[in-house]
Amino acid sequence: MSETLADALKRSAAEVEHAIDILLPVPDGLEARLFEAMRYATLGGGKRMRGFLVMQSAGLFGVDQNCAARVAASVEMLHAYSLVHDDLPAMDNDDLRRGKPSTHRQFDEATAILAGDALQTRAFELLAEPDTHSNPEARAELVLALAHASGARGMCGGQMMDMLGEGQVLTAEVIGRLQALKTGRLIQYSVEAGAILGRAPSHQRHLLAAYGRDVGAAFQIADDLLDVEGTAADLGKTAGKDAEQGKATMVAVLGLERARQQAEHLAAQAAAHLDSFGPAADHLRALAAFMVTRRN
Amino acid sequence: MSETLADALKRSAAEVEHAIDILLPVPDGLEARLFEAMRYATLGGGKRMRGFLVMQSAGLFGVDQNCAARVAASVEMLHAYSLVHDDLPAMDNDDLRRGKPSTHRQFDEATAILAGDALQTRAFELLAEPDTHSNPEARAELVLALAHASGARGMCGGQMMDMLGEGQVLTAEVIGRLQALKTGRLIQYSVEAGAILGRAPSHQRHLLAAYGRDVGAAFQIADDLLDVEGTAADLGKTAGKDAEQGKATMVAVLGLERARQQAEHLAAQAAAHLDSFGPAADHLRALAAFMVTRRN
Repeated sequence: MSETLADALKRSAAEVEHAIDILLPVPDGLEARLFEAMRYATLGGGKRMRGFLVMQSAGLFGVDQNCAARVAASVEMLHAYSLVHDDLPAMDNDDLRRGKPSTHRQFDEATAILAGDALQTRAFELLAEPDTHSNPEARAELVLALAHASGARGMCGGQMMDMLGEGQVLTAEVIGRLQALKTGRLIQYSVEAGAILGRAPSHQRHLLAAYGRDVGAAFQIADDLLDVEGTAADLGKTAGKDAEQGKATMVAVLGLERARQQAEHLAAQAAAHLDSFGPAADHLRALAAFMVTRRN
Repeated sequence: MSETLADALKRSAAEVEHAIDILLPVPDGLEARLFEAMRYATLGGGKRMRGFLVMQSAGLFGVDQNCAARVAASVEMLHAYSLVHDDLPAMDNDDLRRGKPSTHRQFDEATAILAGDALQTRAFELLAEPDTHSNPEARAELVLALAHASGARGMCGGQMMDMLGEGQVLTAEVIGRLQALKTGRLIQYSVEAGAILGRAPSHQRHLLAAYGRDVGAAFQIADDLLDVEGTAADLGKTAGKDAEQGKATMVAVLGLERARQQAEHLAAQAAAHLDSFGPAADHLRALAAFMVTRRN
């Protein structure tokens, strides 16, 4: 490929950042503060991995990049809402996010709760707007898939499991399911969203879903490894919090070495699902490999 | 009409309750607690006014009542999420809701935040599911309209204005806008949802929207009057909180008498929008009148 993964990630992040900026204009009136908090929580940082996955998978089907950027912005808003709420004192109580004060520290708790709520709403709103796709069936499918990925049977359910699992001894199987719900489903959705936008045949959608599932699992294990091995300076957030909070992770159950092997195995398996897509999927394959070598 | 408004409200509330019960089954696994909190927050209480509005307006167009009940359940879940988050210590800090401990008192804060989040997601998910309407355009429209009503330019924005307005002297105009956003838009959506489900022509949808706007405004003023005049036993929640918290209300600006007149005027105007619908809209007209006479 002519463009390196690092360049592609940077370019995509800039496109998604620009889309979010345009899609969250600040109105006049007392409610302006809410929009400022929503913008603070979503703009100016983050790897935009979910947005990148949307843009890349949409690219496989020749989807208009403006439409893809709207869906990428939507999933990044959904992700940002979950971070804002996770950081709250009643949840993970984290003061730092992406190297900056978390939203409730920068504003206040009530504003952070509301900003998270409204970001979730905006994510669904964007998907349902005609500008996202001319076919209402595609729009309804995007809404449904995002809801499945992020609701009580997805991300929120995983977050609940994570909270209840603190200090408990969980099996690798339960941890795998917890992590699939908490972070895996949204990553998988991001990849599938491109196929939905592109009205891809179901066998291609399934291949992308399989890639997304494996990449998501590899990502989470790599994240747990970084929490043990990384530093706050690298991560832009507090390191070592998992062990401190008694969080159930694959690293805690399998040990460092086997966890790393598992992540590498998943990353290779993810890339293999994309064989039939040829060079167009090179960046997605490279991302799978990058998952397990990244430092932040 | 053969059935009284009170009987119609009771019958509709039972139908909506039943729909919610079926649409929120509790799964196995650690995440079961999340579903229990979601059920606690939505089942077993409330007037189900929003659900009633959906059912009644859908009835004007002969919409299948099972489909209407799904949309009614969806808007009640959306409403319930907003109450769960409003009651949190960082927001209104309310220990009582519908005569029972609020969700964060019954469970804990983290679970309440997550349950609210997942109820919002479930509300959008329901709308996007094919069982709600065979036409994907109707489903996408329902999602979009609910997002407009409940997001940063609707309910969440109104809640932000409400928080920032505490202790400030606001004009009747600003208070009117605040209340339209905070509670009015979702009530208006409930009425419009029936027209969307029924694929009603736009002039009928506009009439119902106008009814919804006026009924919503009348409801909010009546609610403020009750907060001044009611008792905790009648309300099932703490009375007198608006004044105590320095909340901006029409009663505070206009005084009791003029606020009551304004509510009565709005209720009459709401009913008048429905003239062309004939006897089929009798319950909706009766509800408008009931708004300003109810005791809780």
